[in-house]
Amino acid sequence: MIEVVALDGDDTLWHNEQLFVDTQDQFRELLRPHVDLGGADLDAHLLAVERRNLPLLGYGVKAFTLSLIETAIEVTEGRIPGGDLQSILDLGKQLLDHPVDLLDGVGGAVDMLTDRYRVMVITKGDLLHQETKVVRSGLDELFWRVEIVSEKDAVTYQRVLDRHRIDPATFVMVGNSVRSDVLPVLAIGGRAVHIPYAVTWALEHVEADPEHHGFPVLESIAQLADCLTTMAG
Amino acid sequence: MIEVVALDGDDTLWHNEQLFVDTQDQFRELLRPHVDLGGADLDAHLLAVERRNLPLLGYGVKAFTLSLIETAIEVTEGRIPGGDLQSILDLGKQLLDHPVDLLDGVGGAVDMLTDRYRVMVITKGDLLHQETKVVRSGLDELFWRVEIVSEKDAVTYQRVLDRHRIDPATFVMVGNSVRSDVLPVLAIGGRAVHIPYAVTWALEHVEADPEHHGFPVLESIAQLADCLTTMAG
Repeated sequence: MIEVVALDGDDTLWHNEQLFVDTQDQFRELLRPHVDLGGADLDAHLLAVERRNLPLLGYGVKAFTLSLIETAIEVTEGRIPGGDLQSILDLGKQLLDHPVDLLDGVGGAVDMLTDRYRVMVITKGDLLHQETKVVRSGLDELFWRVEIVSEKDAVTYQRVLDRHRIDPATFVMVGNSVRSDVLPVLAIGGRAVHIPYAVTWALEHVEADPEHHGFPVLESIAQLADCLTTMAG
Repeated sequence: MIEVVALDGDDTLWHNEQLFVDTQDQFRELLRPHVDLGGADLDAHLLAVERRNLPLLGYGVKAFTLSLIETAIEVTEGRIPGGDLQSILDLGKQLLDHPVDLLDGVGGAVDMLTDRYRVMVITKGDLLHQETKVVRSGLDELFWRVEIVSEKDAVTYQRVLDRHRIDPATFVMVGNSVRSDVLPVLAIGGRAVHIPYAVTWALEHVEADPEHHGFPVLESIAQLADCLTTMAG
């Protein structure tokens, strides 16, 4: 039986990674006059900085912005002008202030789910920014609970389920990241549905075989209600 | 009757604001060669940037670091070298990585409280950083709940109390900020105890008369247990 359906936020309910990709394009343009480095090398350097900063800075736009600034200083060996660094900082602010753009079919799908299940959001990133996005989504009144976490691992999911007295056997997590939304939930005895997004951040990438782990993969959240009915058997 | 005692984190359980003050001293030293501006003017400029960024960036070290960088670029009109901006970014990272230094008497006081009440932490700031500080405090096993919030206003306190099914009449909040720990809790029908810290951040400053609002003011958390006994009548 399924009682609680938890939805990821970024790239499951609303577009996110594409905004980061677009920002990275603008970042590359800003750096072009100051550095003799191909786009791929620049991306690789940024990714290395993000990976190095992750334990201290965590996820979200503020961490990303600090990593952009650090990358710009490193690859130009400090030659980047202050005005360009301010432009990079402003790119981060634009990300934080960007309107929330729901994925196709989200509104109807969430509405339908709330008739049958308790529907919650479990999302990671900047606390204030994620809260803001939930409100801007216009869906906040539909959610039973909203949990913003600093990491989506098995320990965190267990803590969230304990806190709301949810039996893992009655819990389904739905999201675009196999690493963050699927595998850790399976590990604590819950179930999960994967809805891939067009773009996946390199640090979210993981190799996992849906056949082996036995989780459904959908093309769209519009297929979720039927999928859950089948899963509940 | 008192059932739940909630403690603020920064400058109530562990030292915080002094670390920001020390960082700001180092920031002033870094800028000195690049700008003809007195310390007080520089502090005022930083405060204005922090206030302007607050709605978008929220509280915490990452927001502070971004505001330091923005201030450095603005007051030098972009002349600050990239290497010095990296040093400023590193000051922020040192803040995030700083050991947690408990205020005098905290360990004993929390231990005593847990014998009589459910003790929780309600703190605001960066999600990951605050979680890390709770763990580093060594007190995490003593807390019934830990709530990290993006703002400490009446709406947020009401949401936290609802979520944990706490009757405001049985709830006492304890902290160093009249603005964040006392007044909003009184506004929703709870009680509060003020334990001032040596330094208060300008954006936390508020004028309020304890006599008028009727909340106790203590010199140390060591006095808290007795104070709560008196409050419970």
